Amino acid sequence: MFDVLKEDSATKARLGLLKTPHGKVTTPAFFPVATQGTIKGLSSKEIEEIGIEGILVNAYHLFLRPGTKIIKEAGGIHKFMDFHKSIASDSGGYQIFTLEGLRKVREEGVEFQSHLDGRKFFLTPQEVVKIQLEIGSDIILPLDECVKFPTPFDYARLASYRTVQWARKSKCFWENSGKKNSLFFGIVQGATYPSLREYSLKEILNIGVDGVAIGGLSVGEPQNLRYNILSFITKILMKEKKNYLVYFMGYGKPQDILDAISLGADLFDCVVPTRFARTGTAFTNQGKIVVRNAVYSEDYSPLDRECDCFVCKRFTRAYLRHLFNAKEMSAAYLLTYHNLWWYNKFMEKIRESIKEGSFLAFKEEFLKEFEES
Amino acid sequence: MFDVLKEDSATKARLGLLKTPHGKVTTPAFFPVATQGTIKGLSSKEIEEIGIEGILVNAYHLFLRPGTKIIKEAGGIHKFMDFHKSIASDSGGYQIFTLEGLRKVREEGVEFQSHLDGRKFFLTPQEVVKIQLEIGSDIILPLDECVKFPTPFDYARLASYRTVQWARKSKCFWENSGKKNSLFFGIVQGATYPSLREYSLKEILNIGVDGVAIGGLSVGEPQNLRYNILSFITKILMKEKKNYLVYFMGYGKPQDILDAISLGADLFDCVVPTRFARTGTAFTNQGKIVVRNAVYSEDYSPLDRECDCFVCKRFTRAYLRHLFNAKEMSAAYLLTYHNLWWYNKFMEKIRESIKEGSFLAFKEEFLKEFEES
Repeated sequence: MFDVLKEDSATKARLGLLKTPHGKVTTPAFFPVATQGTIKGLSSKEIEEIGIEGILVNAYHLFLRPGTKIIKEAGGIHKFMDFHKSIASDSGGYQIFTLEGLRKVREEGVEFQSHLDGRKFFLTPQEVVKIQLEIGSDIILPLDECVKFPTPFDYARLASYRTVQWARKSKCFWENSGKKNSLFFGIVQGATYPSLREYSLKEILNIGVDGVAIGGLSVGEPQNLRYNILSFITKILMKEKKNYLVYFMGYGKPQDILDAISLGADLFDCVVPTRFARTGTAFTNQGKIVVRNAVYSEDYSPLDRECDCFVCKRFTRAYLRHLFNAKEMSAAYLLTYHNLWWYNKFMEKIRESIKEGSFLAFKEEFLKEFEES
Repeated sequence: MFDVLKEDSATKARLGLLKTPHGKVTTPAFFPVATQGTIKGLSSKEIEEIGIEGILVNAYHLFLRPGTKIIKEAGGIHKFMDFHKSIASDSGGYQIFTLEGLRKVREEGVEFQSHLDGRKFFLTPQEVVKIQLEIGSDIILPLDECVKFPTPFDYARLASYRTVQWARKSKCFWENSGKKNSLFFGIVQGATYPSLREYSLKEILNIGVDGVAIGGLSVGEPQNLRYNILSFITKILMKEKKNYLVYFMGYGKPQDILDAISLGADLFDCVVPTRFARTGTAFTNQGKIVVRNAVYSEDYSPLDRECDCFVCKRFTRAYLRHLFNAKEMSAAYLLTYHNLWWYNKFMEKIRESIKEGSFLAFKEEFLKEFEES
């Protein structure tokens, strides 16, 4: 499922190849977020043009709307969206646990109210896997309990214990489903407590998984704590005989990606490139620019002179600034396209640098240009 | 500037060719509306893909935002938008006159308050031409006074008289500008009064124009009155030695286009295909469908089986319905693309039928299929 093709000598960065039922994903990779079955502002036509190898949809959102029945009848999520590369599906654990007041966690699962219409649901770990199998996801993520920072040790222990129990039930359901045309990832929880992270990881490896997702980080903890935990996890994993893909969930600013790759992370997803686009922020090799700002109203240069996406080839910052200022929806479309194109090239450059043994030099050079501006 | 290539024998429909500084427009033609310098939801990349030969921008809106200075500095509206086919610019007369309470009409021009920030402006007919020349429009439309239906004869007479005076001043300014790399159209006003329409038309022809735009129709009058006026105008024009292009402003449902072409209209603009798209209505050969309706939630067929746009090739009604229901902005993008593609094909079929001498048969067959569903 996952092969490490090359390891960096100076860091824990590595080049890898993940095989899913819908193709190959070269890692380190970034999956844009398509929560409701679309990357906001784009269609699968543009996702293909950009060259994106995988996306992340959200099982919780799709379960509520349009419902698994419709996606199943449509022939699965790939056919529904007309996107035929890899699709991972988040369990919705994170969404459910951020609905404080709207949910109640029990040993058997989670009771919650729909954020759309208040309807009540009780979802077990098994049902969450069932939803993902029905929509036809390539990468299944089990229901987990994500705690915020800071969380007292006792509660974090309870939550990571429960997450392990749920992972076991999820895996069992997945194995017995007879529809194993998917990969099953485990999610490591345990907040910022190394002992809980270690417990969580070892249990998940015992259960047997195709990849290790790290949840419950980037939820407000200091960066050094976050990276200690990541490093702690990848260190344990490197002692394993099998190569496990490391998926850092919900993380993905350019600097963050570089840091996490240095510590052994292979896969990322994050709303940053798409959400920033909608509010008028573009990524360039010289750093972020808030193109909706008045300072760009007479700037007749492209978003990024080094970018070869159609937005940069055709339009100026002045035009894009005008579109944002005039509240034209094409503004968000164009910036989303550019940001994802830029992210895709960024990941390509990272992989290239690992291949050539120059990852650290690339990282330093990139950050110098990106952060100084 | 405008050649009639073929006249239909059974109706006043005709095939024509308009030459503008940015290329040829085969008529009958439909110009989608790009009020603020973008077709809502699309960029010029998609407009080109669809094959659109011309669009209509709005001088009033662009004057207020981003301002003519920026468009001029950008190299003109074609370069600003990166659209290099024909661009007509509405004077904004219609917009100014619908701002009741915010404007005051004087002989010398119109005083109005910006709908954006309340700033006060006084625009003369000359300044309105200047704006259009500065943004680099191919087809200039002079400031006119558009009255609503019904309007008493005396006021309609005053308004059409004023519109003629303004057209004369506009033409004079345009001629003396030294930048005649554009076409100058006249606008016929006169409400539903044949005598005023005749006066308005004859004065405009005396002034000398490259095309005849018909304003002040489709503002609430009964259809028979509207078509009597259109017919009355084209009848007079047919007696002229020169062929004048007839531009029916702000009109453009499919049935309306067919009716108006039968009566001699050559050019249309209308927000219908784009505005309908944003609220979830798609055009198909079998009629309009409101794809956001629940009835399409499990409809796995394309919007229009006969359409070869990428939206119809890739996505089902169920998926598009889901996107509308989930308030995803890609919904409006995809429907706008389809609707303009469909309109473009519709106009192509009309031109083909006139060429082949079968316009009336096409019209009847089209309406039978389109309206019966």
